[in-house]
Amino acid sequence: MTTTMVKKEISIKDALGFANALSKAMPAVAKNTTVPILTGIHVEADAECITITGSDDKTLIRVVEKGLGMAIEPVAFVVPGRMFSDIVKRLPKGEFTIHLSDTDIILKANKSSFELKTMPVEDYPLRGSTPFDISLEIEPMKLAKGFGTGFAASTDNLRPTLHAVHLSGEGNTLSFVATDAHRLSKVDVTLEEEFDPFKNILVPAQSTKEIISLLKEEKEKVTIQFNEREFRLITEKVTFSTRLIEGTYPDLNRIIPQDFKTTFDVNREEIVGALERVNIVAQESNMKCCRFQLAIEGIPSLLISATGTEVGKAKEQVFLGDMQGESFKFAISTKYLLDCFKQLSCKDVVVYGNSSVTPFVFRPKGDECVLDLILPVRLID
Amino acid sequence: MTTTMVKKEISIKDALGFANALSKAMPAVAKNTTVPILTGIHVEADAECITITGSDDKTLIRVVEKGLGMAIEPVAFVVPGRMFSDIVKRLPKGEFTIHLSDTDIILKANKSSFELKTMPVEDYPLRGSTPFDISLEIEPMKLAKGFGTGFAASTDNLRPTLHAVHLSGEGNTLSFVATDAHRLSKVDVTLEEEFDPFKNILVPAQSTKEIISLLKEEKEKVTIQFNEREFRLITEKVTFSTRLIEGTYPDLNRIIPQDFKTTFDVNREEIVGALERVNIVAQESNMKCCRFQLAIEGIPSLLISATGTEVGKAKEQVFLGDMQGESFKFAISTKYLLDCFKQLSCKDVVVYGNSSVTPFVFRPKGDECVLDLILPVRLID
Repeated sequence: MTTTMVKKEISIKDALGFANALSKAMPAVAKNTTVPILTGIHVEADAECITITGSDDKTLIRVVEKGLGMAIEPVAFVVPGRMFSDIVKRLPKGEFTIHLSDTDIILKANKSSFELKTMPVEDYPLRGSTPFDISLEIEPMKLAKGFGTGFAASTDNLRPTLHAVHLSGEGNTLSFVATDAHRLSKVDVTLEEEFDPFKNILVPAQSTKEIISLLKEEKEKVTIQFNEREFRLITEKVTFSTRLIEGTYPDLNRIIPQDFKTTFDVNREEIVGALERVNIVAQESNMKCCRFQLAIEGIPSLLISATGTEVGKAKEQVFLGDMQGESFKFAISTKYLLDCFKQLSCKDVVVYGNSSVTPFVFRPKGDECVLDLILPVRLID
Repeated sequence: MTTTMVKKEISIKDALGFANALSKAMPAVAKNTTVPILTGIHVEADAECITITGSDDKTLIRVVEKGLGMAIEPVAFVVPGRMFSDIVKRLPKGEFTIHLSDTDIILKANKSSFELKTMPVEDYPLRGSTPFDISLEIEPMKLAKGFGTGFAASTDNLRPTLHAVHLSGEGNTLSFVATDAHRLSKVDVTLEEEFDPFKNILVPAQSTKEIISLLKEEKEKVTIQFNEREFRLITEKVTFSTRLIEGTYPDLNRIIPQDFKTTFDVNREEIVGALERVNIVAQESNMKCCRFQLAIEGIPSLLISATGTEVGKAKEQVFLGDMQGESFKFAISTKYLLDCFKQLSCKDVVVYGNSSVTPFVFRPKGDECVLDLILPVRLID
C-alpha cells in the first residue's frame, strides 16, 4: 500500500509485552496541557533495545526493554500517547511492525493497519543526564514503605512545601516525612552502608503512588539518586524521575512529643471496622470527627461515638491491650484516623496520648521506625 | 442502656445474609427525591419471615427471607435506606438485634450499638395487591434474554414511549422489542403453554438491568404479571414491580426488511476487536461512525476504516464466511455496532443488507429468535 524504506522500521515480537511497557510510561504523559508534544510518547529502538519515554516535563518515566523487539538502524518517533497506547493494547497477541516516514508511522499487525501522524521528535523534552550528588541502593520494600508516608501530605494550595514527602538522611538512616500541618507520617529505614548526611529533598507527594506501584514489581535492590533539583529512581527496566519541590521544609521533630501519660494497644482491623461504622452516622450529619472515651474500669476499652442530631447515634466499644495511664475524652478526625490505620499494615497499633488537646501518636506494635501523629479536634461540650 | 419492650424486637441470625437481602432491595430506594420517606427502607418481621421493601414509588423491590431472623410479635419500621444498609454491611458476621421504639430503632451487635431515628411506617408507599390481567411462567434465562433488548431503547426526552422495552405476546410466543428510532433490538421467546394475545406493555428500559441482575441468581421458573399500569416479576425470594410507561408503542414490524441482496457471516469477537481499534482513531477526530467496504474478490472480507484528519488513518480487514451478494460501501455508527455485537453472545453473527441507505439486520447464526437492526449513516464522498 505505502512504500517505506526497509531500514526505518521497528519489529515488535510481542504486542502484549509492548503494551505493558507503554502502560508503565503512560502515567507521566501529560493529560491536560497547552504544550501538545507533552501528550506524546517517545519511542526509540535499536538493534538491542526498545526505549519508551513519557514525560509531562515535571515527571519522566523511561522504560527500557531488551528482547521485546528491534530496529536494524536506530530510529525514534513521537506519537499521541493515549491513542497509541489504546491501539497497541487492543492488538491481537503476537508480532507487529512500525514503519517510520517523515510525518507518520504505519503500524501493521496481521489484518490491522494504522497510519498515525507523528510529532517532531526533536521537540520532545528527553531529560539529559544531570549529575547527581547522592546515589543510594535500597530494597524496594523499604523504599515503598518510606514513600507510603505520602498520604499525609497536604493537598491545599497554601504551603507548597507541604505537598512533598521530605527525604533526609544521616548515618545509615533514611527518613521520610509528610505532613499537612494537622497530621504527620514518618518512616525511618536503615541502609546497609553509611552515607553523607543530607536533607530538604522534597519529592512531590503526587508521585508517591506512581513510585510505589513501580516498586511493587521489583525484587532486586533499586537505586535512588538526587541533587538539588531532581529525584530519580532506577529499577531494572524503569527510570522514574521528577523535579523536586522548591523551598525549605519545616523542622517537624520538635512537634513530636517524647513523653506520654497514656498508652494502649488496639487491634487495627477491629478499630477500622468500628470507625467505619460510626463514620456512617457521623457523615450523615456532615460531622468530620468521632468522639472517644477511654474507659479503664474492668476490661480497658475505647468507646467511639457520633451523634447526628437528625439521624441518631452510633456507639462502638473496642477492647484495648496493655492500657496504661488515665481515662479521658477526646475527638479526632475520622478520615485522618482511617488514613493512618489503613496505611499501617500491622496487626496491633500502639496509641500514645497526653490529653484531649495535645498530639496523639500511633506506631505499629514492635516497629519503632514508623510514627504517625494526629492533632485532636477541640471538644466543645 | 435503654429499656425497650421485649416484644418489639427483631433478632437477626446472620448479619451478612441480612446485608445481602438489603442490597437486593436498595436499587429501588430513591436517591434524589423531594419526598424523604422514599429514601427509607421498609423492614417487616414476624415469627417466620423478614420482609424488606425499597421503593421510589415507580419501582418497588420486595425481598422475603425465611430463616434469616424473626420477631415474636409482627413489627415494621422505616429508616434511611442508604445509611442502614451501609451500617449492616459493615457489621461483624453473626447475630444482631433490632429493638423498636416509637421514634427510633436500636441496632445492637456485640460491641456496636446504633440508635437510628425512624420515619413514619404508615407513610411508606407499600403497593397493594393490584389485580393482574396476565400471569405467565418463564425460564429466567429466556426472560433475561428478552429484556437484553433494553440497550437499544431511547434515552432522549423526545419520545417517552421509546424509553421502554415493548412486550407483546401471541400463541406461545413472547416478543420483546426496543428502539431509539435509529436502531432496534428484538427477541422472541417461546413458552410451554399458549396464552391470550396482548400488546403495548411498556416496561421502562431503565429497569431492565435490575431485572436481568435479579434473574441471574434464579434457576427455577419465575412468574411475570402485568395489567395496564404495572409489570411484576416474582422470583423465589424477590418481587420486583414497576409502573409501565404510558402511551402507544409504534408498529415496528413494517420497518424490518424481509428480503436482502447481501448476507455474510462474521466472527463476533474478531469484528468487535477491529471496531474497537478503528474507533480509537475515529474518536480522536470526534467521528461517530466507521466506513465499511465489502470486498468479494479472493477471500470475501469486510474492510473497516476511519480517517481522522488530524491524527491519521485506521484500516482493518475481517474475513467473512458464507458471503452472498454484491460489493458495496456503507457507514454505520460504531457505538451502535459495538452495542449490538457485544449484546449478542454467539460465536458468529449473520449480517443482512441491501444498500448503503437501507437498514442492516444482524442475527446470531443459528438463532432466528433474535434480530438487531441498525440504520446506516449516509456517506458523503
